[in-house]
Amino acid sequence: MIRIGIIGYGNLGRGVECAIKQNPDMELAAVFTRRDPQTVKVLTPGATVANVADVADWKDKIDVMIICGGSATDLPKQTPEYAKLFNVVDSFDTHARIPEHFANVDAAAKAAGKVALISCGWDPGMFSLNRLYANCILPEGKDYTFWGKGVSQGHSDAIRRIPGVKNGKQYTIPVEAALEAVRSGSNPELTTRQKHTRECFVVLEEGADAAAVENAIKTMPNYFADYDTTVHFISEEELARDHAGIPHGGFVIRTGTTGWNGENKHVIEYSLKLDSNPEFTSSVIAAYARAVAKLSAEGVSGCKTVFDIAPAYLSPLSGEEMRAHLL
Amino acid sequence: MIRIGIIGYGNLGRGVECAIKQNPDMELAAVFTRRDPQTVKVLTPGATVANVADVADWKDKIDVMIICGGSATDLPKQTPEYAKLFNVVDSFDTHARIPEHFANVDAAAKAAGKVALISCGWDPGMFSLNRLYANCILPEGKDYTFWGKGVSQGHSDAIRRIPGVKNGKQYTIPVEAALEAVRSGSNPELTTRQKHTRECFVVLEEGADAAAVENAIKTMPNYFADYDTTVHFISEEELARDHAGIPHGGFVIRTGTTGWNGENKHVIEYSLKLDSNPEFTSSVIAAYARAVAKLSAEGVSGCKTVFDIAPAYLSPLSGEEMRAHLL
Repeated sequence: MIRIGIIGYGNLGRGVECAIKQNPDMELAAVFTRRDPQTVKVLTPGATVANVADVADWKDKIDVMIICGGSATDLPKQTPEYAKLFNVVDSFDTHARIPEHFANVDAAAKAAGKVALISCGWDPGMFSLNRLYANCILPEGKDYTFWGKGVSQGHSDAIRRIPGVKNGKQYTIPVEAALEAVRSGSNPELTTRQKHTRECFVVLEEGADAAAVENAIKTMPNYFADYDTTVHFISEEELARDHAGIPHGGFVIRTGTTGWNGENKHVIEYSLKLDSNPEFTSSVIAAYARAVAKLSAEGVSGCKTVFDIAPAYLSPLSGEEMRAHLL
Repeated sequence: MIRIGIIGYGNLGRGVECAIKQNPDMELAAVFTRRDPQTVKVLTPGATVANVADVADWKDKIDVMIICGGSATDLPKQTPEYAKLFNVVDSFDTHARIPEHFANVDAAAKAAGKVALISCGWDPGMFSLNRLYANCILPEGKDYTFWGKGVSQGHSDAIRRIPGVKNGKQYTIPVEAALEAVRSGSNPELTTRQKHTRECFVVLEEGADAAAVENAIKTMPNYFADYDTTVHFISEEELARDHAGIPHGGFVIRTGTTGWNGENKHVIEYSLKLDSNPEFTSSVIAAYARAVAKLSAEGVSGCKTVFDIAPAYLSPLSGEEMRAHLL
């Protein structure tokens, strides 16, 4: 049994808890929270909820700790800190700061003899893996990544900060024509506007000016100005009824050529269509937690990413079973 | 420089030669053939063509030998034999006999201190990897593999053996409605007939009975009887003009659920659209040859499959470069 700990019990932490239930070789050891543990109700009957301040007491009772904090401020501190005590997995997703985060976590994990896996999930994560594999197979080619249809938390937050907006949700939607152009192997150069559209569902505050809100959204630099954006005004009830989910997904496509004169075209495409972004991320994390436990048992230490983990480590099956049934 | 040898110079061997040209850290050391080397012209200027009987002379001049024989009779003998002398990669694709082949190659490679990678390509190969990853991420789900649109060599051969057939080519085509049903997450149970159709382009011999040939094809057990099959009669010129390529591809899809009560659905899809089946297979092999060279340099020995190789080993990039640009 792989004993899993969860630090942070939001959408991601709950997702990890659900994923543990689907993996018979894993068990939830404890959930750690900054809140009063008495106030946190978890789904797993009989599971311990503890204060994160007491996490060191669990040093020998947890095989892999999943750190479910945010990338902006939590993980840069938490992952190096907890890697001194535990094998850890995080989902750090600030692409530009990955090298720095890797270095910090690697130093901590190596000093403690622990294995740390950072930036696990689907992007970074499965999308990264597919970029790497496709680049290695087709050295002469071009990469495309599309996201959606899915909820962007950052863009939804940006809408909600506009005066007159009571609530709102934003979907990022890949442009079908752009996807088709890429799949055709024509290697299009695509602008930001050509790749994705943005669709917003907005609940106005009483008496707010709809036209002004719509204009504020559509002209917002970085977030919306470079996109074709649609704004729908709906009621709070409609928002709750039709837009409560956190779907996401996307497409990683590499097109390339082979042959002595590059005469043959190829398209490699990986896509995800996810009802729940955090639960899928959690499911990837659970599989990699198994890998971390195996690597730690082999005496490995230091920081890893999905690039460093042989696929067989993710599976509960033996090598013989994998070769017989999946190869 | 990784020095690559090629045993067997058919479509696959030529594909490997082309792939080496696209990878600046690789060079073609020699091509080995059962034919008279004087009669074999390779594409690489100045490359050596040698008789396969002399392969042992190259023991210290080749880092990885790519064995481009057939799975039916060549590879079961060749791969264990050459693993005594070289690090090797093959594309053994008789799924049912992989466990036996693995055991034979593993014993030879371990005894010789060499690394052998078997069953490399896209199926087995990249499709297997995607089945494994998707199964680990979504333990509660269902796998679907579709092939095509592509040329099936075995089915084309079967057509050509029919009396009255001068030449022919067969395409395996996935049924779009079946793909859509799978992608919807409805977990359909699909019969053989529902998943793929077969399309045949046939050149008749002078005076042959078209209706009899068509009937012989459509009722052929195992090959065609269980499928909806279309037969087109064309001229030798049309066959040469329109059907000279060896395209292939396919789809690996896993649908599954997450959440405490399995309430959220997810679709993971990997697809390939290939102008040249052998050249794409060769490109996968070249990337894995790099991994084999690295593993050998680390002192690893024995038989491996794509499941056992961490993705980073396939890349010419450093860990820092990969994390900065692909993660």
